[in-house]
Amino acid sequence: MDFARYVDARRAEIEQALAAALPAPPACPRVVADAMRYSLSAGGKRLRPILCLASADAVGGPRALAMPAACAIELIHTYSLIHDDLPAMDNDTMRRGRPTLHVVAGEAIAILAGDGLLTEAFRLMARLPESADPAIAARKLRAIQVVAEAAGAAGMVGGQALDIAGGASADDPLDDAGGQLRALHSRKTGALIRAAATAGAVMAGADAPAVGGIDAAAAEFGLAFQIVDDVLDIEGAPATLGKTAGKDAASGKRTYASLYGIEGARCMAADCLERAERTLRSAGLADSALMDIGRWIVNRSN
Amino acid sequence: MDFARYVDARRAEIEQALAAALPAPPACPRVVADAMRYSLSAGGKRLRPILCLASADAVGGPRALAMPAACAIELIHTYSLIHDDLPAMDNDTMRRGRPTLHVVAGEAIAILAGDGLLTEAFRLMARLPESADPAIAARKLRAIQVVAEAAGAAGMVGGQALDIAGGASADDPLDDAGGQLRALHSRKTGALIRAAATAGAVMAGADAPAVGGIDAAAAEFGLAFQIVDDVLDIEGAPATLGKTAGKDAASGKRTYASLYGIEGARCMAADCLERAERTLRSAGLADSALMDIGRWIVNRSN
Repeated sequence: MDFARYVDARRAEIEQALAAALPAPPACPRVVADAMRYSLSAGGKRLRPILCLASADAVGGPRALAMPAACAIELIHTYSLIHDDLPAMDNDTMRRGRPTLHVVAGEAIAILAGDGLLTEAFRLMARLPESADPAIAARKLRAIQVVAEAAGAAGMVGGQALDIAGGASADDPLDDAGGQLRALHSRKTGALIRAAATAGAVMAGADAPAVGGIDAAAAEFGLAFQIVDDVLDIEGAPATLGKTAGKDAASGKRTYASLYGIEGARCMAADCLERAERTLRSAGLADSALMDIGRWIVNRSN
Repeated sequence: MDFARYVDARRAEIEQALAAALPAPPACPRVVADAMRYSLSAGGKRLRPILCLASADAVGGPRALAMPAACAIELIHTYSLIHDDLPAMDNDTMRRGRPTLHVVAGEAIAILAGDGLLTEAFRLMARLPESADPAIAARKLRAIQVVAEAAGAAGMVGGQALDIAGGASADDPLDDAGGQLRALHSRKTGALIRAAATAGAVMAGADAPAVGGIDAAAAEFGLAFQIVDDVLDIEGAPATLGKTAGKDAASGKRTYASLYGIEGARCMAADCLERAERTLRSAGLADSALMDIGRWIVNRSN
C-alpha cells in the first residue's frame, strides 16, 4: 500500500464529509455559519480524522462507521485553534497562512464560532451514522464519551488552562520539569490525538485488547507530535509552518526542545515511535496505515 | 400537589447531581475545575433542569432517567452565561449578584471554563444513566441530538451571534421588527428551554404525540420567558434581578417591552401561556407541574 495515496484518499473523503457536517443558512445565521466554515476550510493536515479512519481500518471495521467521529474530532480541533488564538489566550493573528478568525470576524463571533463547532461535533456523533442497530448505538455513546473526556476539562481544555496559568514556564523550579511538561501536553495536544484513534477503533467495533493497544500507541503518537512541534517551532520556516515560528522560544515557554535540546527531543520522538510500534505489533496491528501515521508524525516538516 | 414544594424538592436533587457532575482534581486541573464550579454554584433558578424533570414526570416516566440531561442543560446554560458576559460580548461584570467569572479569573480561564462546561454536558448525557438497555441508549442519542441542536449554531449560539451582529437593534427598519426579535430569541433563549422539556420527555420514554405536545408547549414557555425578561429589565430592581437592570433600554436594544410596551408585552406572555395550556390539555398533560412551570415563568419577579 502506498501511504501517500492512502492519506490523499482519506483526506478527500474527509473534506467531503466535513463540507456536509455543519448547519447552513437559513437554519443557521449566516454570520456564524460563515465564520465556522472560514476556520474549518483553512486546510490543515487533517491528521486527527485520518488517524481516526486509519484506526478503523487497522481493526478491519467499516471505515464509514468512523467518519462522523473523524469529522467531529476535526471540528473540535478547529474550535480549539480558534479559541487558543484569541487575544485573551495566545493572541495569534496568523494560522495556516491566513489571518485568524478573530482578526477577520471579531472576537465575539470567533468565540461563538468555536462554541458552535464544539456543539456540532457532538450533534454529528449522536446523529450519524444513522442506524437502528443497538450495537452501533452503544458504540456511538462510548465514542462520544471518549471524545468528550479527551476534549473536556480533564483533557484538552485542562491542558490549555495549565498552559495559560503558567503550569510549565521556563521559570518553574526545574525538578521534574519534564513531568510537568508531559502533564500539560498529554492533555493539551495528546488527549485529542489519542481519542481520534480510540474513537475510530470503537466505532469500527474493535474488541477490548485492540482498543487498548491502539489507545496506548496513540498516546505515544500524541507525545511524539508535541515533541516534533516544539522542534519545528525552532527549525521550521514560517512559510512551511503557516504560523509564526520561534514563538515559544520568544515567549520563554518551556518546550521539549528547550528542555532536552533539539537532538534530545528528536531521540525522544523516535523512542515514542518505537514503543508505539511494539504495542501495535503485540496486538497484531503494526502492519497498518495507523503505524505509518506515527512515522508521518515524527518525520513531518510542518 | 404544592408546586413550591415540588420545585424545592427537584432543585435539591438537581444541586446534588450537579455537584457530582464535573471532573475534579487531580484528573482536572484545579484552575479550571474551580472556575467551572464558581459559575455553576452561583445559584440561579435552575429553571431549565426543573423543567426537564417536570417533563419526565408529566409523561409518567422515571424522573431519574432525565436527571443527566437536566444537569447537562444547566451546564450548557451556565457556559452560555460565562461566554455572553465576556468583554468581547456583552461585557457584564455582575451576574446573579456576584462578579462574573472573567472578572475574578481572567478572560482566558473564563473562555476555557465555558468550553469545559459545554463539553462535560455531552459527556454526562452519553455516560449516564448507566444502562445496557438498548432502548435507553437510543433515548440518550436522541436527547443528545435535541440538546446539541438547540445549543448549537442553528440554536442558542446562532441567536447570540445574531444579537452581537445587531440582528435586532432599535435602528433596524421597523417592518417585521417583531418577527426579527422572535427569530433571534427563539434561538437565543427559547431553544434551550424547549430542549430541556423535550429531552426530559424523550429520556422518560414518551411517545411521539406527547413529545410533540411538550415541544410545542415549551416553545411557548421559551417565548414567554424572554418577554417577561424584557419586562423585568425595565421594572425589576437590581437586588431582585441580581444583574444590572435597564441595560437593554440603555443600550438601545429592541426588546418586546420597547416594541409592544409593558402592557402589550405582558398580554403576549399571557397568550403564550394560554396556547401552551391548550396544547398540553389536548395531549392530556395539562394537570402537571410542567404547566405550573409555565405559570411560574410568566409570574416570576426575577
